[in-house]
Order: sequence, then C-alpha cells, then structure tokens
Amino acid sequence: MVARRLERMVRQVRRWRSSDGSTPIPVDPTLGEADRRRLCRLIDDCIDAKGGELAARRRASAIAATFLTLDDLGRRRFFLTLAHDYDHDDAAVDTAVDALVRSRDPEDRRDAERRLAHALTPSRERLLQRFIGLEDGLSFVVDLREELRSHREGDPALTALDQELRHLLTDWFHLGILQLESITWDSPAALLEKLIEYEAVHEITSWADMKGRLGRGRRCYGFFHPLMPGEPLIFVEVAMTTDIAADLGPLLDHDADRIASQDAETANFYSISNCQRGLAGVPLGDMLIKQVAERLQADLPNLRRFATLSPIPGFRDWLIDALDDGAPAVLTEAEAELLAPGAPDQAARSLRSVVAAADVPPPASLAPLEPVLTRLAARYLVEERRGARALDPVAHFHLSNGARVERLNWMANPTVAGWERGLGLMVNYRYDLPHIEGNHDAYVTTGTVEAADDVRRLLTGGRP
Amino acid sequence: MVARRLERMVRQVRRWRSSDGSTPIPVDPTLGEADRRRLCRLIDDCIDAKGGELAARRRASAIAATFLTLDDLGRRRFFLTLAHDYDHDDAAVDTAVDALVRSRDPEDRRDAERRLAHALTPSRERLLQRFIGLEDGLSFVVDLREELRSHREGDPALTALDQELRHLLTDWFHLGILQLESITWDSPAALLEKLIEYEAVHEITSWADMKGRLGRGRRCYGFFHPLMPGEPLIFVEVAMTTDIAADLGPLLDHDADRIASQDAETANFYSISNCQRGLAGVPLGDMLIKQVAERLQADLPNLRRFATLSPIPGFRDWLIDALDDGAPAVLTEAEAELLAPGAPDQAARSLRSVVAAADVPPPASLAPLEPVLTRLAARYLVEERRGARALDPVAHFHLSNGARVERLNWMANPTVAGWERGLGLMVNYRYDLPHIEGNHDAYVTTGTVEAADDVRRLLTGGRP
Amino acid sequence: MVARRLERMVRQVRRWRSSDGSTPIPVDPTLGEADRRRLCRLIDDCIDAKGGELAARRRASAIAATFLTLDDLGRRRFFLTLAHDYDHDDAAVDTAVDALVRSRDPEDRRDAERRLAHALTPSRERLLQRFIGLEDGLSFVVDLREELRSHREGDPALTALDQELRHLLTDWFHLGILQLESITWDSPAALLEKLIEYEAVHEITSWADMKGRLGRGRRCYGFFHPLMPGEPLIFVEVAMTTDIAADLGPLLDHDADRIASQDAETANFYSISNCQRGLAGVPLGDMLIKQVAERLQADLPNLRRFATLSPIPGFRDWLIDALDDGAPAVLTEAEAELLAPGAPDQAARSLRSVVAAADVPPPASLAPLEPVLTRLAARYLVEERRGARALDPVAHFHLSNGARVERLNWMANPTVAGWERGLGLMVNYRYDLPHIEGNHDAYVTTGTVEAADDVRRLLTGGRP
Amino acid sequence: MVARRLERMVRQVRRWRSSDGSTPIPVDPTLGEADRRRLCRLIDDCIDAKGGELAARRRASAIAATFLTLDDLGRRRFFLTLAHDYDHDDAAVDTAVDALVRSRDPEDRRDAERRLAHALTPSRERLLQRFIGLEDGLSFVVDLREELRSHREGDPALTALDQELRHLLTDWFHLGILQLESITWDSPAALLEKLIEYEAVHEITSWADMKGRLGRGRRCYGFFHPLMPGEPLIFVEVAMTTDIAADLGPLLDHDADRIASQDAETANFYSISNCQRGLAGVPLGDMLIKQVAERLQADLPNLRRFATLSPIPGFRDWLIDALDDGAPAVLTEAEAELLAPGAPDQAARSLRSVVAAADVPPPASLAPLEPVLTRLAARYLVEERRGARALDPVAHFHLSNGARVERLNWMANPTVAGWERGLGLMVNYRYDLPHIEGNHDAYVTTGTVEAADDVRRLLTGGRP
Repeated sequence: MVARRLERMVRQVRRWRSSDGSTPIPVDPTLGEADRRRLCRLIDDCIDAKGGELAARRRASAIAATFLTLDDLGRRRFFLTLAHDYDHDDAAVDTAVDALVRSRDPEDRRDAERRLAHALTPSRERLLQRFIGLEDGLSFVVDLREELRSHREGDPALTALDQELRHLLTDWFHLGILQLESITWDSPAALLEKLIEYEAVHEITSWADMKGRLGRGRRCYGFFHPLMPGEPLIFVEVAMTTDIAADLGPLLDHDADRIASQDAETANFYSISNCQRGLAGVPLGDMLIKQVAERLQADLPNLRRFATLSPIPGFRDWLIDALDDGAPAVLTEAEAELLAPGAPDQAARSLRSVVAAADVPPPASLAPLEPVLTRLAARYLVEERRGARALDPVAHFHLSNGARVERLNWMANPTVAGWERGLGLMVNYRYDLPHIEGNHDAYVTTGTVEAADDVRRLLTGGRP
Repeated sequence: MVARRLERMVRQVRRWRSSDGSTPIPVDPTLGEADRRRLCRLIDDCIDAKGGELAARRRASAIAATFLTLDDLGRRRFFLTLAHDYDHDDAAVDTAVDALVRSRDPEDRRDAERRLAHALTPSRERLLQRFIGLEDGLSFVVDLREELRSHREGDPALTALDQELRHLLTDWFHLGILQLESITWDSPAALLEKLIEYEAVHEITSWADMKGRLGRGRRCYGFFHPLMPGEPLIFVEVAMTTDIAADLGPLLDHDADRIASQDAETANFYSISNCQRGLAGVPLGDMLIKQVAERLQADLPNLRRFATLSPIPGFRDWLIDALDDGAPAVLTEAEAELLAPGAPDQAARSLRSVVAAADVPPPASLAPLEPVLTRLAARYLVEERRGARALDPVAHFHLSNGARVERLNWMANPTVAGWERGLGLMVNYRYDLPHIEGNHDAYVTTGTVEAADDVRRLLTGGRP
Repeated sequence: MVARRLERMVRQVRRWRSSDGSTPIPVDPTLGEADRRRLCRLIDDCIDAKGGELAARRRASAIAATFLTLDDLGRRRFFLTLAHDYDHDDAAVDTAVDALVRSRDPEDRRDAERRLAHALTPSRERLLQRFIGLEDGLSFVVDLREELRSHREGDPALTALDQELRHLLTDWFHLGILQLESITWDSPAALLEKLIEYEAVHEITSWADMKGRLGRGRRCYGFFHPLMPGEPLIFVEVAMTTDIAADLGPLLDHDADRIASQDAETANFYSISNCQRGLAGVPLGDMLIKQVAERLQADLPNLRRFATLSPIPGFRDWLIDALDDGAPAVLTEAEAELLAPGAPDQAARSLRSVVAAADVPPPASLAPLEPVLTRLAARYLVEERRGARALDPVAHFHLSNGARVERLNWMANPTVAGWERGLGLMVNYRYDLPHIEGNHDAYVTTGTVEAADDVRRLLTGGRP
Repeated sequence: MVARRLERMVRQVRRWRSSDGSTPIPVDPTLGEADRRRLCRLIDDCIDAKGGELAARRRASAIAATFLTLDDLGRRRFFLTLAHDYDHDDAAVDTAVDALVRSRDPEDRRDAERRLAHALTPSRERLLQRFIGLEDGLSFVVDLREELRSHREGDPALTALDQELRHLLTDWFHLGILQLESITWDSPAALLEKLIEYEAVHEITSWADMKGRLGRGRRCYGFFHPLMPGEPLIFVEVAMTTDIAADLGPLLDHDADRIASQDAETANFYSISNCQRGLAGVPLGDMLIKQVAERLQADLPNLRRFATLSPIPGFRDWLIDALDDGAPAVLTEAEAELLAPGAPDQAARSLRSVVAAADVPPPASLAPLEPVLTRLAARYLVEERRGARALDPVAHFHLSNGARVERLNWMANPTVAGWERGLGLMVNYRYDLPHIEGNHDAYVTTGTVEAADDVRRLLTGGRP
C-alpha cells in the first residue's frame, strides 16, 4: 500500500512539475517552525489568490509538491497547521453573529446571514478546492485524507478536518459521476496489479489466480472516477453458477469445470473490496451491487438469482461474549443437553472453548455443533442489533442495500481466515431486484430484517 | 437557443426515464397551488432521503422530469418555491446563534459553530446536489440556471438562488476538470452545429463558412466538461498569419490565400464565445487563451506572437456621452480645429452626429477623423475606468488575463456591427507569454494598464 | 468529385513527404519522352528493390508523388507506360513454356510451372503492391484506378490493366476486412460532407436535409476499410415506418411526424450509394443490406419487414423500345382498347408519346395509364432478361442478393428524376431474412425471380 | 504455444458459430476417406461459390471449423488434400499452353496468356482467400501455416503449399498495414501474458520481471495487424543507458539504479522476438528496429546511439568445426603459443575442449582466452560467409538491415544459455540512422560487412 502510494505520488510530482512548472519549496522534511512559517506564507497567498488565479494554481501545486517531500513528523505538522491555523476566525464569527442579532429588516438579516455563513467557512476550504483542481489533484486529496486518518488520534481538530474532507470528497464521488466498468483479462496489467493488492476479502495469490477470477463464468466490475483514470475505487467479483453458492471452494478453484456465463442462473457476488482508504465513509458500495446486477441481467437473460456469499465477521466475537455472559441467554435447553449430555450447565463453557480455538477444529469434532452454530448465526444476523442496525457490519451493509438473509452455509470457508470470520459459516444475502427497495425501506425505517423462510424457521428451532 | 434547449431537455427526459425508470408526476403545466404542494412533498422526501439514497435519486429524477413539463408560469413558481420554501430556517438559525453565544468552552463552541453552519445552509442544496448526480444532471442544472436568470428580476430571493447556483457550478467547472479540445472539420456535425449557433462575435453564416474557419491556417479550441460530452462551454477561433492582423476581412475570407500554420509567426484570437448562459459569472475564459497559446506554441514552434483582434464594444456609447458632456473633456484644441475649422466649439456636436449615425458613414467622410477617433479609442481603452477596472468589458477581460493593449486598427471591421461595436475600429490585445503574469498582477492590484509604446504615444498626441 | 479528389491527393502528397521524406521527381506535367524515361528508371529500381526494401518503399512514394504532379496527358502516358512497358515479358513466357513442354518428370514440371506462372505475372504488380503499402496508399490505388477508367477507351492494354487493378482491389476489399459503421449526426462533419457529395440516388440538398436523414426514425450505415479511415465505400439510408413505404415523399419530408425507431415494424432501405468509382466492379453492396438488416433486427426487435423503395431505371427506355417494336408485344388487347378506344392500333404510338415526354405529364392525364404501366413495370422487372439476369440493373442487384419483388408503387416519385428513372413508379424489393439465401440460389442458378403474389397477379392481368 | 493456439482456436470456433451460424460438419478426427470426400464436396462448393458469396462464406467457415475438430493425422490428411487435390489441373495447363503456342496475333496471344495464368493458379487459392475474409480469419490462416510447417517434411507438395501461404501472407502483412505500438505496464494483461510466452531471447521469468522490463528507462514496441488485434507479431525490448551496453546483467536487473529515458544517450535493443511461427519467412523485423529508432529519436531527443546487444548463436559450432579442421586455419602462431606454450600444435585441441564444455568454465580459466576468442568472434562475424551472406544468422539479419558490427563484449552473458549462444560473448550492432541505407546497399549488393575501427583492428591482430 505504502509502495503504491509512493509510486503514485512520485508520478504526481513529476506530472505537476512538467505541466505547471511548479517545484516544491526547499524545506526540511520535518517542517521545522521557520519552514512551517514559510509554507504558511505560500498558503496565505494561494488562498488570497494573490497574483491571480494562475499564480494561485501554481502555488497550490507547489504546496502539494512540498507536502510530498515531508516525512511523517513534517506531515503531522502540516495537518495540524491546516486544522488550527486555517480554520475559520472566531472573532470574525463573533462579529457576524453580532450583526445578525442586531439586523433590523429581512434584507439586512439576509446579508448578515450570508456574511455569517462565510465567516464560518474554514479558510483552508479554498486551498483544498484548488488542490482538486490540479492535474491528478483529486487523487492527491484522497491520499491526503488517507494519511490524515493515520494522524487523527488525539486532536479533535484533526478529526474535524477529516470530516471536512469526507464531505468534500462525498460531493466529488457522487454516483452520477462514477463510472461502472467491466474489468477483464484484457484490462491494463497496471489495473489488475492494483486489484491483486486491494482485494481485501479473499486474497488473490498470483497472476494465475487473477486470470482465473476473470475467466469463464466469472465477471469483475469496478467503479472509477473520470478524474482518476486507472484507479479503481471499489470492485466486486462475481461467479456465475446454477444455484446459489454454498461453498467458497469451487468459486476459487480455477481448475474446476465451470458453467458458461450465458447458461448460468445465479450470479454470486463473492468479494467486494474498497480500494481507497482516503474515501472511508464516502458511500460507494451502496449501488455497486444493484448496478452490477442490472448490467448482468441485461447481458445474461438467463440469470434469475443474485446473491452474495459473505463472511459473518462479528459472529465469533459476539458468540464468545454471549457465552461468557452465561449459556441461558443463547443456548436452548435441548442444545445445552446436546452439547453437554447430562451436564447442560457446562455446555456454554464447552462451546466457548471450541469457538475460541485459534485454529479450525477437526471437522469430525465440529459436525455435532452444526445445528447449534447455524441457529446461533441466524440469530446473530437477524436479531442482534446496535440500535436499529444489524450488529454485524457486513449484514448491515447488505440489508441497508435492500438484500435479505437467504441461507446459512455450514463450513463454507473451512480455512483459518474463515474460522475467524464466522466459524467457517458463510451467509448468502440475496438481491431480489423487485424487492430491493421495499427491503431497504423496511430495514432503514423500522429496522426490519428480511430473511428467507428457512432462515426464519432456524430461528424458531426448526431445521431449514 | 430555445430549440436547442428543448431538444436537450427532451433527450434528458428520455434518458432519465430509461435509466432510472422515473417519470414526471402529473401536474398542470402552470403548477397550480395543489400541484405545487404535491411537488413539495416529493422534494421534502428527496431532501430527507426517505426510503434511502436510491429512492432519493429517483425522486430527484422525477422532480427534474416534472420541471420539464412546466410552462413559463409553472417554472417561475418552481423557482419561487425553491427560493422561499427551501431556504434555511430562520428559527433554526436563531436557536443555533443562541447556543453559540452561550457556549462555555472551545469544544462546546466548535459544536455550536458546526450546528450554526448547518442551520445556515439552505435545505435546497441537497436537492441541487442530487440533480447534479443524475445522468446528464450537470447539464440540467446549467440549463436550470439559464432559465432562472430570465425570471430573476423583482425578487431578491431569486437573485440569491442564482448566486447559490453560480457558486455550486463554479466548484463543478474547476479548471482542473475542464478539457481543452481541438475542434476540426472532423469533429461531430452535432458539435459544429452548436458552434454555428453559439458564435456570438462574428456570426458563422453557413456550413461552408464553418469549414473555412477550420481550414488551412485556422484552429479552433473549446473547453468541455467530462460530464457534458459534446457540449462546448466556451470556444476560441484562431487565425495564423505572418503579422498581427489589422483587419477582420482577410481572416473571414476563405477564398483568400492563406499561409500554412507551420509557417505562421502570429496566432490571432479573433473570436471567443461563451456557450452556456447558465454558466454566467463562472470563470471559464480566464485561462482558455493562455492554454491555447501554450498548445499552439508547442505545436507550431515558428509562432512568435499571440494577439487578439477584438471589438471595442463600449467605445461608441462612451464617446457619445463624453461629447454630450462637452468637447473640452475629450477633444484637444488641435482636434477641435481640425474637425470644425474656424468653429472649434462646434467640433463636439459635429463629431457626435457622425458617431451617432446608425449606419457606417462613407469612408471618404471618415478618413479625416482617423487620428481623432484612434486617439480617443486609445484613451478609452487605457484610461477610462469603472473603479479600478477598465471601463470597456472586453478590455477588462483581456487585461485581467494579463494581455496588453497592442495596437488600434482603423476600419478593421467596416460593417454595421463593427460600427456599433467600436466605430469600425478594432484593437489587438497581445499575450506575451513571459509577461502575462506580471501584467495581470499590475492590473489587478494597482489597476495599471499595460500598453505598447505606439499606443502610449497616441495618448500623448503623437502618431504611432 | 474532382475537387474532393484533388484535396485528398494534396493531403496524400503532404503526408508522404512528411512520413517518408519523399518528393516527386521534377518532371514536366505532360511527361515528355525524356521525363518518361527517367520515371521508368525509378520504376525499374523500385520493382527490383535496388538498395533494399526501404529504398523501394521510398521510390514507390516518389513515383506516386510524381504521378500527382502530372496533367491529364501526362497521366495517360503514365498509364500507357504501366500497361505496355511493365507487362510480362513475352520472350520470358516463351522460354518458360518451352521448358514446361520439355519437362521430363513431375518435379521438373512443377519447377517449370512455377517459373511460367512467374513469367506471366506483369512486372508492374510489385509496384502496385508497394503503392498499397504506403501510408494512404490504398486510397491512392483506388483513385489511380478511378482515373485510369477515364482513360481506358481505345487501348485493350489499358482495359487489361483496369481488370488487374480490380482483382488486386477485390482482394483488399474483402468482406472480412470491411467495417460496418453507423453514421449519425454525431459523425465527423468531414464524413457527412462526403455523403452529401456521394449520394447518387436522392440528392441531399443541404445540411438540414442531411440532419433530417439522420434524425428520428432514420438510420444510415456505411462500409469502411481500416486503411481508409473516414472514407465511406458505400452507404445505405434507412427509414423506419409502420408499413412498407409506397411513396418517396414522406421519407424525405423531415417536417412530417415520424414514428420512433423502436416502434417501427418496417425498415425501408431507400437509398444505396457507392462512393468510390475506383472500386467499380468490386462487390461491396452484396452483403451491406443483409448486414444492416441483421444489425437493425438486433437493435429494434419490433422490426418485422425489411424492404427497399427503389427506382426502376431501365423501365422507360425498355418501354420506348418495346413500343417502337410494335404494340402487340407489350400491350394486351384490353389495354390497347383502353388507351386508344376504337383505334387499338394507335395505342402503342399514343403510349409511346406519353412515355417519351421529357417532363412529368399532369397527373390527371396519367391516371388512366396506371393499370397499364404498373403491369408493364411488373413484367419488365420479373420477365425481361439479359441472358439469365434481370434486365433492370437495380433489380438484378437486389435479386442476386436474395430479395423478392414485393410491390409496385404508382407515382411514388413524381419528380422529373423519378419520371426518368421509372415513369414515377418505384418498386419495393423485400429482404425476408430466412428466405434470402433460397431466393439468391434460385435466381443465380436457374434465373428464377421471386415475386409477391400481388405482383404475380399483375402479370397475369389481375389487379393486385 | 500449443495451449495458446488451442485457446485461440476455441475462441475462433466460438466466434464463427455466433457470427455466421456455421458449425463443423461431423467428421471423425482422423478424417477417414469417406469423411475426406465429404469435406472435399464442401470445399468444391465453396470454391465454386455455389449458392452465392454468402453461402461460400458460410462454407469456408464450416471448413475451418471442421479443420479445428481434426487430430494430428486428420490435419495431415487435410493438408495433403489441399496440396494434391486442389492444385492446378495439369491437363488444363497443357491445353492453355497449346493455345498459347498456336496463337496467331497479339490479341489472341494476350487471351491465351490470361487463360494460362488462370490455369496455373491452384484452385485452393480461392478457399484460402475466403478463409482470410472470415472474422478472425487472418489469425486462422497464420495458425494453419504454423501447423502445416510441422507436417511439411517428406512431401514437396506440402512445401509448395507452405510457400504459397507465405506469399499470400506476405501480401497481407505489408509494412503499410502493420501498426507499431508501444507496449507498457498499462497494456492489457492478456497481451503481456503473450510477451511472456513469446519472448525467445531472454526468458521473462515472472510478472515482476515483465513489469521491470516496462519500467523506468525501458521501452517495448511491437508490430500489430489491424485484423489481429491484441496479437503481437514481433516485438523488441529496449533499454536506455548512457553508453552502449557491454553486459546483459544490468539490463535485466530491475533493482539496479537506472537512468531516466529522457537523460539517456543510447537505446539498446536487447531482445527481438517473433511471435507467430505461421509468419516464418514473412519479413517483419526488417523495419521494426528502424521505425522504433525513429520513434525513440522523436520522443527522446537526447538519444545519440542506437545499438543492439546480440548473441552470436553460430559462433561456438563454427569454432568447434574450425578447430576440428586443424588449428592453422583459425589460430595465429602467437595465439597457439599462448594457448599451449611450448606445444603450439596442441593449441587447437586444447581450445576445442574448453569451447565444447557443456557448462561455462570458471572465469579464471577463461581469462587468458579473452584476446583469442574475441578476435575469433570478430572474424566469424565479419569474414565467415555462406555465399554472400554472413554465416551468423543474427549478424545477417542486422547487417541486411543496415547495421554495422560495433563492438565485441567479453563475458557479456555469463550464463549457460550465453555460453551456448556465443561462448559468453555478445556483440553490439549499431544502427546509425544516416548510414543505414548505405550499409544495407553495400552488404546486399557486394556483401561488404561494415565494422567499427576497433573491430577491424581486432581482425588484424591489434587490440581494440
């Protein structure tokens, strides 16, 4: 990640120099106080557009180039400077408030309001807007925020700056401007290299693995911004099958026989990865799945089902906690008896020790636990909440996008990573195009979680 | 213009329907009160994102589609609704001001400031942002503002809304995002048709005229926005010659012999036209000339001079006014004697009657006036001000871009239009790349107008 | 046409000079004998690749550039030189024939055959191949042939050269390499300008007419060669309607209401124009209609009928001849009586005088002739032959492409041009995708002309 | 290679079926006699265009699809069928010869010649031309020839067919139609995968190696055919350095410091690989280097030298043979004394045993041999011939392209592969743009090998 960022920044500096003739001002990488003051003078002139828009643009470029020469300490000082020295001016706010309070007529008040709104705007906003206006500037601001976030701790002004950047970037990463593009083995190697690096759910282990994920019966789509060509923002990997996938193995086994996309009835979204930490909190994924589903439906009229095969990342921790709190809360009597015949009060402890195992226990030892763990997973997904939201973050993401909980899959990912992210269980969230919006509304407004009948039956103790 | 706009809107409506499945709500074109209230409910839900971002987007699309079904009265009502009903809430502002005034510690104050800034933001801003996020949405907002501006008069809230839109659009039409493109006879006919329609300086009379302006020794460049493909924002026409052009005729005569671009030493920017009234006040032209000059310099290394051949649109009216005020102010004694030999006090009146003629007087009758009118034009351009700005709007545009007043050209445009926009005189503004920034600064900060020696000499009575 | 060609050639010369550094050798435009000999030496060296392939290429470029400096006489001399001086060598052929005749064993004979085939190949073939290999060289050879064809008369060697070029170009204008492209109002103006110039069937009268032909309910497609970008080879204009068009008027009236393409059931191919005279005899149109029909069918699933609205160019001349030969051959007794009541033997002469009129007779006077002329047109199209081919060239084109004669349309083109090309009658040829191949085979192998029942009934005297 | 070919063919079959609706005829993979006769009937109908061009095209497609279902034996039978059954007809040739011999006047003779040329053309030529006209057809014919070449042995008719295909493909792979494209890390992964596979000189060991060869200070260019998109025909890898590279190591070491391309003075062409065995004998490389050199010169004005770093593949075998023939022929007396002090007659044998070693001998043992082997390499390259050609194939390639022998580099490739292809020595061929043509002519016409002074001095015994 760091290497990539550095590479990108070096590229940016090179471009800026060639396109704008700008160079960094010579400062010590730590941005000592004297250097900091020199940089502030440059920032002041840039914000005031001294010497015209042309000069302001060149100064913004020089400031960005200078930032890239700083080390960690220097960058922290830069962020603190932006956060504290280029916030709004309290005195100006007070004056404007005063004028508003004393305004006599509507016209007068309107003027005062406008001046007050202006006084409340941090002066750095014009600098940030100018950064975006540079060639490759949007990338620079995204990376700037990524770095800022690693420095955020311990100073609320930095947190406020982070939020400001988030709002700014949210405007620029509107759905209307994002472009959905198909990624194939004919895509630039430089782009595929980034997918390999960014894939956060199921690691891409080699170029052969990458090729397999783009081959027969597979698709991959990403969102791109027109000002950041070649830089994926978020991408999803899709596997076409007959039925909804119950098992990760075959999806990632590129030597297995595969159905041709045209003949498939189900599109399985088995991996969604965000690529830009600097866009944390900027909603990108919300409509990716829906747009990809529509694109696939148009391309492959045989498709009848759209579903994910997702991890349940919070399940294990929740279960350990729940078992610590005492079995009655989570285990039924029958289950307790099943787990610890004759000593049901030991059941929770016994289950906890299995669940807390660092490695995947032997399948044979787990088999008896299947009904218990599957039911608990269903309960965790459908009923556990933080406020009105589903407790599980992946569940929350898909439910708020309008999906329903379709099916629990025992031992769908029997790897260590799978054990950690759901005790080997995986869940299908199903996107039923005509019901997406209704599901979304029900979840967002009343917190209702839509679930398939089999999942509901699990909750009431019946087997699916 | 109207036809074009309608065509574009029809296209938009079609796209929206197909892409988002949205349709206008059925309202009377005049948007009577009951309909207006129904539309307001839709707007409320859109702003509150009721039903999720998806639904909000579809609602924004439905609102835009509904707007397009309104007639003039209905649209005025729509604008008044946006301006008055979706402004910020005064009570909320008062509450927030109160909280700010009573805040005790910095943390508390920061919170209060954030809430106040939020309270001051008109609620319509989220609607406008959502419009931009639609497919073709940026075009829609540009057109929306164009229409708003024709309704602006008589209600300061509409003027405020216009300014709000200007700010919003200024962010979206950053130089960083604009693309400079060469326009040639190989460009789409649909694009050239727009140039023919938008050309505001020297009318393009036919497709043959258009072809001539893109032929040997000619170039044309425009700025485009990636979200408005095929829609020029501003364009400039350039003619390559040996010396700086003194006369419009040869530039527009496509049958005349022309020097090849590679052999030319001068690039004459003889026409710059804005294409989008909805972008009034959004700075686009500022760097167009400079960017085109740089592009040309790179392409055609023989070029040594960049200059405009520009009208002097305010000259005639200014001169009539000045002569009304009494000759002493503008005519020298020698000139007065020249114009009215033996009766110098009649000189101003006599000159005024010539200048005020609706049609171009016969060349012979004008010839004696050449030195007088040329000197007066130089004075008008270099010395007449409104505040620190040059009085002539075209002069102000080029001077604030860093050009200098290079040469006055007698009878450079001997047409009726030329008579109205400068008594047939035209002026060259010269862009000397290394001095652009210095000129800009001098003009912007101290109001200094840079002028060539010959022009200076004119001012002091000497012939160039 | 000449202007266009000149323009293209000037462009070529410019490109060649810049890309290859080649210049024409200085010859008199008439290519006097001394100059011709110098040019021959250049051609010899080029054919022998003296100095390597590099030098050969540069020489080919110089020869082409020199050709472009020649006047009409000079070019004729150039063609005669190619035809006579760079044919194969008779002596070499005789020697090779001799060797073949005296060959003893198969191996020996194979060798002799190879040498004979080589001896029979005109030496100019290598020059022509080298021309094609130049930048823009394929265009050059197409234009070269266009010119050659105007010089062809009176020398069989020139006709042979023309045929040689046709074979060469047929290889290069394979269907596999041609690209079918949609032409729209967003196509380059330079391309549309060429359509305006090349349209051979229904003149495009203005840019507004061009725009109308590319607007709502209209399509246009052309074949292009990858080595001649922007240069259409052949194009077809299509109008979408509910029923098969019976009348040219509405198709060319751009102010009339039009059905949207998506709602149309019939695609009418109302104009097909070849663009390159230099490709005469190279089959291009054969599959254009079929490919366009397939493309349209995929795009517009509502389409159910594909038909042309075509002129009957040979009808009038044929009818005049037939009437000269004496009425019995073409008029039925009933018709004769109808045309000349009481004096049936005058019928032919009377009809002939109407038909031979230079201008369109008044509709009222023509009305009584409708049944007679319509029947005669059907007979002409379906039954008149030159050998096994339909006599009418347009009929032959469509029939050999697999269409059938669908309907005769009285007064479908009531203009002077329409009168000349079919006495105002036009015919629909229908392309019924599943029957195209069967129709083609029947026509090509047995000369059977497929016709709709109504047309058949006409032939036997019944009204449709 | 086989895998790639299969993949491509599968792709082709898929395309053909979808585009033309054609399917292979059901034959046994071995193409038994009955099946062969059925296929011949299809071929006959295709050649005769029975049922029209449409049907002929579909039949060509079916024949190609059928070919792809054949196994090795079946394909051999197919090739033998083409070679023997679809050659020209000897009887027809005899008849035509007869007619020619008995022709009386020029007109008559011309006719007879035309008929004879036609009779000499193998009937399969029309089938092959139709293959090319299919979608992806050019690729198919290239692959067809690749396969044919593996079956060629033992039947002169197959060799003749191979030559026929070479001539046909030479027409289609004209320099004029080939496109020189830059290949970068932003090129499609599918393309880079092919480079990795096709690289024939210095194996690309991984994707990281591939990336390194496209990184800072490196360039790669390939020739492509517009009808075979994404399929490289030949490519060259270039390394930018200060001086002409003497050593392969640093060129392939991607961790070493590298000069930026803009600052480099030398472009080293260190690897040229043909990609299509089916294009053997079709000249592609001839101008690749020259075109790349010109492109680089335009891009990087600092470049002053263009040179290869090439293996000397025939050196070792030649030397072993020469030493077998007896030392006097190749070793000077001084060298013999040096190699075998006191027993110069053992020198040859002693040197031979070193040279014939399977593995690279220890550097220390080789050091004394440097002057001897370097001189012998110079002699081998400059003086050893097969006819007028340089004996070494790589030397012949570069010399006939106009390069000169610039410098011998001792231990430039100290790997086993390097030992086998030149005893570790490599040679720079220098492309001096202004002298390329003169060098070419001298080499082609008189066999003169241009060499740098230092190389010449080596030959006469002096040290460079």
